[in-house]
Amino acid sequence: MSDLIARRRNLLGPNVSTFYDDPVHIVRGEGVWLWDADGRRYLDCYNNVPHVGHCNPRVVDAICTQARTLNTHTRYLHEGILDYVARLTATFEDPLKTAILTCTGSEANDIALRMAEAMTGKRGIVATDATYHGNTTLVSHLSRSNVPEVGFGLGENFRHVEAPDSYRIDDPDGQRFAEKVQQAIDDLEGADIGFAALIVCPLFLNEGFPDQREGWLRPAAEVVRRAGGILICDEVQSGFARCGHHFWAHQKQGVVPDVVTMGKPMGNGHPVAGLVTNAEIMERFRNSFRYFNTFGGNPVSCAAAMAVLEEIEEKHLQANALRIGILAKERLAALARKYEVIGDVRQSGMVFGAEFVLDRATKEPAIAYADRVVNAMRDRGILLSKLGRHKNTLKIRPPMPFAEEHLDLLIETLDDVMATTEVRR
Amino acid sequence: MSDLIARRRNLLGPNVSTFYDDPVHIVRGEGVWLWDADGRRYLDCYNNVPHVGHCNPRVVDAICTQARTLNTHTRYLHEGILDYVARLTATFEDPLKTAILTCTGSEANDIALRMAEAMTGKRGIVATDATYHGNTTLVSHLSRSNVPEVGFGLGENFRHVEAPDSYRIDDPDGQRFAEKVQQAIDDLEGADIGFAALIVCPLFLNEGFPDQREGWLRPAAEVVRRAGGILICDEVQSGFARCGHHFWAHQKQGVVPDVVTMGKPMGNGHPVAGLVTNAEIMERFRNSFRYFNTFGGNPVSCAAAMAVLEEIEEKHLQANALRIGILAKERLAALARKYEVIGDVRQSGMVFGAEFVLDRATKEPAIAYADRVVNAMRDRGILLSKLGRHKNTLKIRPPMPFAEEHLDLLIETLDDVMATTEVRR
Repeated sequence: MSDLIARRRNLLGPNVSTFYDDPVHIVRGEGVWLWDADGRRYLDCYNNVPHVGHCNPRVVDAICTQARTLNTHTRYLHEGILDYVARLTATFEDPLKTAILTCTGSEANDIALRMAEAMTGKRGIVATDATYHGNTTLVSHLSRSNVPEVGFGLGENFRHVEAPDSYRIDDPDGQRFAEKVQQAIDDLEGADIGFAALIVCPLFLNEGFPDQREGWLRPAAEVVRRAGGILICDEVQSGFARCGHHFWAHQKQGVVPDVVTMGKPMGNGHPVAGLVTNAEIMERFRNSFRYFNTFGGNPVSCAAAMAVLEEIEEKHLQANALRIGILAKERLAALARKYEVIGDVRQSGMVFGAEFVLDRATKEPAIAYADRVVNAMRDRGILLSKLGRHKNTLKIRPPMPFAEEHLDLLIETLDDVMATTEVRR
Repeated sequence: MSDLIARRRNLLGPNVSTFYDDPVHIVRGEGVWLWDADGRRYLDCYNNVPHVGHCNPRVVDAICTQARTLNTHTRYLHEGILDYVARLTATFEDPLKTAILTCTGSEANDIALRMAEAMTGKRGIVATDATYHGNTTLVSHLSRSNVPEVGFGLGENFRHVEAPDSYRIDDPDGQRFAEKVQQAIDDLEGADIGFAALIVCPLFLNEGFPDQREGWLRPAAEVVRRAGGILICDEVQSGFARCGHHFWAHQKQGVVPDVVTMGKPMGNGHPVAGLVTNAEIMERFRNSFRYFNTFGGNPVSCAAAMAVLEEIEEKHLQANALRIGILAKERLAALARKYEVIGDVRQSGMVFGAEFVLDRATKEPAIAYADRVVNAMRDRGILLSKLGRHKNTLKIRPPMPFAEEHLDLLIETLDDVMATTEVRR
């Protein structure tokens, strides 16, 4: 293990993060399970990339069959990309019926921001102050947690607004958030940059997936449209039925975005991503920018992505996310009655977690405690993480076939771990 | 066919380019061959992505075996990425011994430009005026052919110098090119932008793969270092033994770049790419930028990439590129003795082509003629394209297992096509 870490440091450089104080060395996966090099089994409560389960046979077969037949680029005609985009866009409301396929969510967001500039002639972008949207030079500026010391001076175009937080901030109908967005727009216009787009994850997942009623994002969307900007929803984490009630999380928010980007779960780990938009934006972008992506939309990637859509439908994974999510919230709420350290329990389909506080009255974040719980869970064979504005909220975001028996094991183990983990700074 | 084109227009938007006046609808590939939906076979003289042959069994098996076992990200420890990076960096000279893996060459170049900023504190980038290095917002500015109307105002950081051209520009030892680079550096410094990097394909492939003696790039590299900048070699097209004499084309140029980026052929079509650099640059970048790429370096991508390295070695594909390239040049030179329209024949390993001119004295480019030849070759079952400063040079860049019998078919067909294609504007 220490040999592996030393090799990593030499071959990949410093500051390449691993999870857990005692990193895991995973060698095999199946469904919601992972195995390490010693044969030990872990319940995967973290990974959303293997959306329909690790090594899902339908996806693997689709990849192998297509890789044996043909893998080439989209300058030749091929039905794979057309059949996939037709099926993908069928999950969207009008007028979101046209797509670009890329390899990563970062590439998709990089295009989406250029679409905003192409449509508005402006460059000002608004995001929340606790988000992450990817790693290109342009897109990395969306993350305040990752404020780049390098980045070609692009920072001036970005404004970060207070992230929603249903536990700490009173904003039941999204009016406060809309006002913050308006302030950022005013600031961009005052700085002569102008306003191009608001980009958000419609579950605000990294922000801590706050509880929000249906249509919560509508006031912000109205502010965006009134200012002549476009609304980009980054559904890299929230999409493909994870939120349970809907196939796309923006549908719960009651808004029709101008651009929806997607990635991680799209090919169950195969590098495929993309965006969906309306004909007008697509045309404006395509005519002002000669975009081509060599690997984007290749037949193997499309086969993998198509298998994911089929698997979600045939295994009723959206209904499973809805059902398990509700159960998970009940089970976490029961733990909250037992452990004072749980300040809040939140859930949105197959994303759920508990926010830890040192004191329910002051809501002081129990950050170190969250760390200890995450590491203790890993030692007990359960993989999860933490997130949110204060990094004190459990991030439980398992593969979609996660079932009640897995939830039982997760909650029982969490109960055990919490019973023996001291609450202190 | 027209139905497919209409579906493309609706689902993917306008201005999504296809090859050929009569686009091909490819459904199957094997080695250097492609088949269309009507069962017609095409000799692939164009595609460098299926580097070790379409649907190469070793690569397909590696992908399938690993996809059935585990596909996850690099925040868990895994030997796949370490074994691959060790083998990859073994093909590089010191001190190029550390790597970042991404999904696309665009992502790799996007990082390389940030490394240049991180190392120099400056943002000025120099490239040639006939190149292409990828499609992110930042990287797309490297292409003058693709001058973005949108692009967040990044254009001011870029300078484009006259591309090398051994047929039209007298620069036998690279001094003139070095002077042009120096002028661009002076211009960047005069504009208070400062100089960060020169980025070139060391074969100048898009520029028309000019004939250059060993060490031709050395004067430019010296200018770059004297000015405090870094040299980035984009080996997305030129790398992995394509140039025949060497495994990496910069080795023929007699320079050790600071960063080498790579992509397309790396996983034989599987979306994997990356860069190799020295420990100092990696450390500076890693410490000033928290870079993470979800799909980058995943076990399946590494398995595909490892199989490509193995196949190059075990099938002696570097030696094949050297041998076939020399033969190809001889065969094209014979055609040049027969057809006045061939002004120049050039070759660098498994990249070769003829430059068409209307008049050998004036060297007026025969652009429309080149178009007609490319389309007539497609009609005769041979896939190739054109490139260069004037887009009048045949681009012949086949998969590396391209053998003498394939060369025979290519040259015989080209002879036939040229015999019946009228030379006119």
